[in-house]
Amino acid sequence: MTDRRCLSIVLAAGEGTRMKSALPKVLHKVAGLPLVGHVVVAARAAGAGDIAVVVGRGAAEVQAALGDSTLDVFTQTERLGTAHAVLAAREALARGYDDVLVLFGDTPLVEAEALTLARSRLAQGAAIVVMGFRTERPAGYGRLIEQDGALLAIREDKDCTEAERTITFCNGGLMAISGRDALSLLEAVGNSNAKGEYYLTDIVAIARERGLPVVAQEVGAESVMGVNNRAELAEAEGIWQRRRRTAAMLDGATLLAPETVFFSHDTRLGADVLVEPNVFFGPGVEVAAGVTIHAFSHLEGTNVEAGAEIGPFARLRPGAKLGRKSKVGNFCEVKKAVLGEGAKVNHLTYIGDASIGAGSNIGAGTITCNYDGLNKFETRIGSNAFIGSNSSLVAPVSIGDGAYVASGSVITQDVPANALAFGRARQKVIEDRADDLRARQQAIKASAKK
Amino acid sequence: MTDRRCLSIVLAAGEGTRMKSALPKVLHKVAGLPLVGHVVVAARAAGAGDIAVVVGRGAAEVQAALGDSTLDVFTQTERLGTAHAVLAAREALARGYDDVLVLFGDTPLVEAEALTLARSRLAQGAAIVVMGFRTERPAGYGRLIEQDGALLAIREDKDCTEAERTITFCNGGLMAISGRDALSLLEAVGNSNAKGEYYLTDIVAIARERGLPVVAQEVGAESVMGVNNRAELAEAEGIWQRRRRTAAMLDGATLLAPETVFFSHDTRLGADVLVEPNVFFGPGVEVAAGVTIHAFSHLEGTNVEAGAEIGPFARLRPGAKLGRKSKVGNFCEVKKAVLGEGAKVNHLTYIGDASIGAGSNIGAGTITCNYDGLNKFETRIGSNAFIGSNSSLVAPVSIGDGAYVASGSVITQDVPANALAFGRARQKVIEDRADDLRARQQAIKASAKK
Amino acid sequence: MTDRRCLSIVLAAGEGTRMKSALPKVLHKVAGLPLVGHVVVAARAAGAGDIAVVVGRGAAEVQAALGDSTLDVFTQTERLGTAHAVLAAREALARGYDDVLVLFGDTPLVEAEALTLARSRLAQGAAIVVMGFRTERPAGYGRLIEQDGALLAIREDKDCTEAERTITFCNGGLMAISGRDALSLLEAVGNSNAKGEYYLTDIVAIARERGLPVVAQEVGAESVMGVNNRAELAEAEGIWQRRRRTAAMLDGATLLAPETVFFSHDTRLGADVLVEPNVFFGPGVEVAAGVTIHAFSHLEGTNVEAGAEIGPFARLRPGAKLGRKSKVGNFCEVKKAVLGEGAKVNHLTYIGDASIGAGSNIGAGTITCNYDGLNKFETRIGSNAFIGSNSSLVAPVSIGDGAYVASGSVITQDVPANALAFGRARQKVIEDRADDLRARQQAIKASAKK
Repeated sequence: MTDRRCLSIVLAAGEGTRMKSALPKVLHKVAGLPLVGHVVVAARAAGAGDIAVVVGRGAAEVQAALGDSTLDVFTQTERLGTAHAVLAAREALARGYDDVLVLFGDTPLVEAEALTLARSRLAQGAAIVVMGFRTERPAGYGRLIEQDGALLAIREDKDCTEAERTITFCNGGLMAISGRDALSLLEAVGNSNAKGEYYLTDIVAIARERGLPVVAQEVGAESVMGVNNRAELAEAEGIWQRRRRTAAMLDGATLLAPETVFFSHDTRLGADVLVEPNVFFGPGVEVAAGVTIHAFSHLEGTNVEAGAEIGPFARLRPGAKLGRKSKVGNFCEVKKAVLGEGAKVNHLTYIGDASIGAGSNIGAGTITCNYDGLNKFETRIGSNAFIGSNSSLVAPVSIGDGAYVASGSVITQDVPANALAFGRARQKVIEDRADDLRARQQAIKASAKK
Repeated sequence: MTDRRCLSIVLAAGEGTRMKSALPKVLHKVAGLPLVGHVVVAARAAGAGDIAVVVGRGAAEVQAALGDSTLDVFTQTERLGTAHAVLAAREALARGYDDVLVLFGDTPLVEAEALTLARSRLAQGAAIVVMGFRTERPAGYGRLIEQDGALLAIREDKDCTEAERTITFCNGGLMAISGRDALSLLEAVGNSNAKGEYYLTDIVAIARERGLPVVAQEVGAESVMGVNNRAELAEAEGIWQRRRRTAAMLDGATLLAPETVFFSHDTRLGADVLVEPNVFFGPGVEVAAGVTIHAFSHLEGTNVEAGAEIGPFARLRPGAKLGRKSKVGNFCEVKKAVLGEGAKVNHLTYIGDASIGAGSNIGAGTITCNYDGLNKFETRIGSNAFIGSNSSLVAPVSIGDGAYVASGSVITQDVPANALAFGRARQKVIEDRADDLRARQQAIKASAKK
Repeated sequence: MTDRRCLSIVLAAGEGTRMKSALPKVLHKVAGLPLVGHVVVAARAAGAGDIAVVVGRGAAEVQAALGDSTLDVFTQTERLGTAHAVLAAREALARGYDDVLVLFGDTPLVEAEALTLARSRLAQGAAIVVMGFRTERPAGYGRLIEQDGALLAIREDKDCTEAERTITFCNGGLMAISGRDALSLLEAVGNSNAKGEYYLTDIVAIARERGLPVVAQEVGAESVMGVNNRAELAEAEGIWQRRRRTAAMLDGATLLAPETVFFSHDTRLGADVLVEPNVFFGPGVEVAAGVTIHAFSHLEGTNVEAGAEIGPFARLRPGAKLGRKSKVGNFCEVKKAVLGEGAKVNHLTYIGDASIGAGSNIGAGTITCNYDGLNKFETRIGSNAFIGSNSSLVAPVSIGDGAYVASGSVITQDVPANALAFGRARQKVIEDRADDLRARQQAIKASAKK
């Protein structure tokens, strides 16, 4: 199979007006990846070396959103039906392939296994494999009429006989077509119908007239579930998340309340990871074995090494790298920063553009002042250093190994290794003065009421 | 229809002992609005110009909770049945109306559409419209016995014949009554029954005896779902939220995980708003188009203009007004404060009683010190100002346009436009002193163990 | 019944390889308590004075995890079947009991009521009570064959006749055995079967041969639901949480969105407690009446007195004690600290190892600097004190009653009662200097690009 060349054509030209959005429909996201991106991922996993995406508008936008320069993006300028849409990628088809997959950009739950199976049917000699699904409510769908293992026809609901209307096996739209026949079949499709459109489904009849073998393949209904409005988008997201949570648990992660954990398309979790309720994984997160993620944590673009502990209420932003057994605690934000083994950032702290050496402890309320309004600067903290609570580290600045910064300090200059640094005012106490102060406050309050 | 005068009588006198609460049952809330408030909203939306609420106790409390001085609140001093309860509002009834709606204060999911439809039936000549619901488990409910489009009777479960017991159309309790007949019908209700109570349902038989047309109207079971304990309260809340989430999505908002987003009765969202999982909308929130609300955000009494970005972990309290494209980031609290266009409050910051001009940047860990223990004071920050991280702005204080406050400063006096302000101690470094310090800490630790 | 002595033997020797975990299966947790701990709790509630746990390995680990020195833990060194496992506790059995309960360490949802009922059947003369459950999909389970109220046999699925195969009453594994007969019955079990194992179920046939009365008792399917992988662990957690939420609501707490509230096995809530969405209760939390817990709060090891208000975004850690009507607000962490009546810790504050007197107000951004890198020290704040925002309180330190700390102060020495304390630098303003600064920043930016 691997030596068969495969092209996948992804139809993504639908207007998507029911999304009520300025964004093209197929760029709406499930698990942080555009709908069409999920389809591309499944096609690649099924061995499609080349992928052509057919859009109605915004070709550059789609290509940019997918961040994949190897995609061929074609524009269907007129909307004349699905066969016409596929032929917008004629240039790609003409290159010659063994297998052609025709997929839809708004079915993000399509599974690679189904596509691989369809390709194997082509390898066994089928000219067309039509993917269908079973439903207890087939009304409105085209029925797949089979006989002796062959697909006789795709019958529109309105054209069904009484007997055919009871068929529950329906056209899912997705097809695999033999590359040898694809272009010729598509070019034979006519538009002599009520709407004057070129329908992809017509190639089934054409192929049968030519004596080519046509078969149907059952796939899960989710695989062909299209997204047409935001409620369906949320439904697709929900199904995707459910699949992903189950996979995570069966792979050895504990999710206390799986229904409250949200994964991204590329999240990676090690074994014996414990995830408390209400954790959100944005894109680009990798978590090693034995990590605990407490409730109410939000991670993006983060790499967490074994045995680290996160949250509750931690926010890890892109570029956060947490070393083995390090800790990031409540109301802490870490961005573009490396924490060494066993380093601790436990309370109400902002660490940005920084490196913290192994074993260092960052006190509560510490802020790396990394931004001057225009530029960003780095804070470098050595190993086994101690940063007293409520300190401000004004970058660029370095704190040496084993150095000690007193609580409440503003640090503007480098602190050498093993030095003690202060940057705070001396305390003054005025005895018995609080009552005077309160009397003045009372006077202000009284005058404010006048 | 609009020229028909309508009175709605809302029965809210139930004790609600199963709520196990000091609060009257109908003041328990769904989506931040008391149960009875939802019924009032639906009645108003169905065109009820006047509304009478009948309570058992706490009339003033109910009126205060609803904050609606136009409501007539009547007290039913004795509990002698539903007809008796309706007659507690006799004074209102006597004013003369075309339509009278009899509703229940503990059915928060009643829908205006159903009430409007019932009123239209009155306009077409019905004297009474009884609202019923279908259920597969009718046991225990009164059945609606219909013939040729007329309602013959409401038959109590225990009085049903074997045939009647199979009827699945049940009395929902709600009624619309012709205003011309209402008082006369109600006064004809007797109490010669086992409990010696006056039952509202008796008016059906009385009306039929008088030859007045009585009809039944089907409404959704949710519309008549009563709340009697906290589990049912949570169920009603859940249904309300589900309805609201679907409506938000169909109107063009993206909710990544709709089941984790909680709306208030008065939340308003623009188009292309993106809401990540776990967002809580308290009362009084309005969000314009194109706003992104990241996970774990909590908003109340807040106005957000187009293109702003909120959270994750943001808390917006009453009086927060976020200008176009402004940002409020993680672990930030904003209360009674206006942010200008593009202003940024991104990290671990408290902004209260303040105004921030367009384009200003507030550094991480900044605190507006707005409270002296007795009075609250204002902080005014101009446009394009820069407040260094971990600064304390001691109100009342003004920072001018384009001014710059150094990180870690305590600002107690006004800073003119374009000025640079410091309020922090100079740093001192004592070299090679950290080891001494650690030796002393070890000594303390050792002595503590003795 | 109470004078009957009861031993419960909990079988916990399963390997649990499908958990894909280094931790023994029965130590995985539901609601913060190990699976086997739930079984022990149910056994104790059903009056089992003595409890023997049979493990395959890690006896010490299991005993430590349960923190219950009164448990007898036995090790089954070879895995030779369930009867063999029970006999690993022979020493306990030999002590002589009236009732013996045989339970499984991986069925955390077993209910005390079922066990109590089984014991009452023993008291009425049964020698064995086999607990069974009803299922619509009995295939694979042993069927309970009853006649005239007696249990004739437990028939393995493969040995069933066609008629027996339709029986939906299946063996749940749990048993109650008369203590007088238990040891003798167990010792009579042989291993002449395909696997050469000693099966506990064989005691049913042995007892019947001896003319001893054997009965079956129906229990809920959840009661015998075993946990074998992490997806089942999450399912058990979900069912436990659902039960607990409903109980909390019926006891008079309002949970706005019960499905988002997570309880621990030992959480205690008073009446009229309001819990907003997304609240996590770790172990050891007790909340008195009339407390409001806002969304996104995380509590562990905390005691909250009547009328207090918590969150949103509050984190209460072990040793937090909140007095009547005290408040802990957003982005605040409280650990090992006592708050007096009406004390307020409202914004972005860390309070650790501290006591705060009644009526004191802690300003936003305050940090108790309780850790010097090695030792923890205490902060004591009297009553009616005012701590200005963004202050650092360097422990050990005391602030007297009615004292006033200015905003932005670093406090290193004690502040007497009624004194006013400052610990901050005086502000300096350099007029018209911000533009110079920005010019320098621009130069840095420009040079960075080269």
